[in-house]
Amino acid sequence: MEPKVLVNPTVQEAYKMLRENLPQHKTILIVGNCWVHYVGRASSKLEPGERILIIKEDGSLLVHRSTGYEPVNWQPPGCIFQVKAEENILKIHALRRKPAESVNVFFDKIFLVSGLNLVDSGEFTLYASEEDMQKAILMEPSLVEDGFKPISYEKKVEPGFVDIYGVDKNGRFVVVEIKRKTAGKDAVLQLARYVDAVKAKVNHEVRGILVAPDISRGVQRMLSTLGLDYKTLNPKKCAEILKRSETKKLEEFFRKA
Amino acid sequence: MEPKVLVNPTVQEAYKMLRENLPQHKTILIVGNCWVHYVGRASSKLEPGERILIIKEDGSLLVHRSTGYEPVNWQPPGCIFQVKAEENILKIHALRRKPAESVNVFFDKIFLVSGLNLVDSGEFTLYASEEDMQKAILMEPSLVEDGFKPISYEKKVEPGFVDIYGVDKNGRFVVVEIKRKTAGKDAVLQLARYVDAVKAKVNHEVRGILVAPDISRGVQRMLSTLGLDYKTLNPKKCAEILKRSETKKLEEFFRKA
Repeated sequence: MEPKVLVNPTVQEAYKMLRENLPQHKTILIVGNCWVHYVGRASSKLEPGERILIIKEDGSLLVHRSTGYEPVNWQPPGCIFQVKAEENILKIHALRRKPAESVNVFFDKIFLVSGLNLVDSGEFTLYASEEDMQKAILMEPSLVEDGFKPISYEKKVEPGFVDIYGVDKNGRFVVVEIKRKTAGKDAVLQLARYVDAVKAKVNHEVRGILVAPDISRGVQRMLSTLGLDYKTLNPKKCAEILKRSETKKLEEFFRKA
Repeated sequence: MEPKVLVNPTVQEAYKMLRENLPQHKTILIVGNCWVHYVGRASSKLEPGERILIIKEDGSLLVHRSTGYEPVNWQPPGCIFQVKAEENILKIHALRRKPAESVNVFFDKIFLVSGLNLVDSGEFTLYASEEDMQKAILMEPSLVEDGFKPISYEKKVEPGFVDIYGVDKNGRFVVVEIKRKTAGKDAVLQLARYVDAVKAKVNHEVRGILVAPDISRGVQRMLSTLGLDYKTLNPKKCAEILKRSETKKLEEFFRKA
């Protein structure tokens, strides 16, 4: 890629470049002195200062200050853009229809403007921790089995902490032990100890379910002997569930401010 | 500001620039083909592709793809950076101590690198809608008065919808009417109608509280005559409460993926 870059362009030069590059859905980078008005469900004003503006090929917009990992202003994908150059001010208007929201970015000094044609088909893969798997199960208990209802997690019993403690669809108590890697005999013995400890306490039948992406050789037999169950669960799947829910939260966040 | 910009630099040239600019806590922009490894509570891998990397002066890091308003990888402020150029690959290592997290970004092609000295003291002001004020009160009911407990919101009563319905610390029913601008006599009459409608329904004492940043001339007397209360509440304060809670959500999101 030969990136188009203008350093210290005039407002007219920057305007011309945007007029060419925006309709081609290029990714636009502008660094300069700007102020921003937002009107939507709420409204906001950002006083002048030197910032980075990114407009992506999907029509999303981000204004980044020199500190903080959050953008100060943003719009999700699907914006329609209008550019104007009037009285030595570059005005970028980003409009969303549903909900009706508009962001106006005004530049009076531009240090850098670039139109980028980014080629990117690389996959992003997130691997989850055991704690993340636990969270995913608490959010979607059916990952363990249909009708499973968590009661508590990190429940202290004699030998340590039970990952998740709950009841199955028949009302029987269930102890869940989570492993993010292939579970070996150690994991089974750990689960068995928890089940025994809870049994002694509640004086009722208690089931034990080992949750892991895979089990080692001989572990299935050991589980059967001890009357314990096994449920395959991939940490990646958990990561996606969390990512989805967190993205929802993030979207909520972005929708508002 | 005279921005330092290198277009299509070699890995060595980009390395040299980073070695100079990173210790000076400049804001760094790199556009190029990169892949990213993250290891922390969870871990992630991003396959090669052309992206924008931003390192801010507070030590936060963002990797942005050409679509989506969210960064694909990020680190909050406070990272320590190491840069290397080996075998024609530029490696940027961002390390956080607490929690221990590290992001490695590897570039094999660089289109653009820039070291920016952004001057920005502009204030960001967010103005809230009535719906935002309602949300803030539901999150922090003491904004109305100490001991206030919301029961429901947008409760339908005969003349329309009550903004917030709850009980005060003495167990009396309370109807809250919210205005985001100076409240006039119309607002008082609206509140009075809601109070009467609820009174007729519950057959109990019902208080009415008008919540607004300010009230017009003569409104205080009218409120007193009708036995209604007034509580000053600035929409800006509500916006900050929401922003704070949403930032928490955002931080949670960022902490994980």
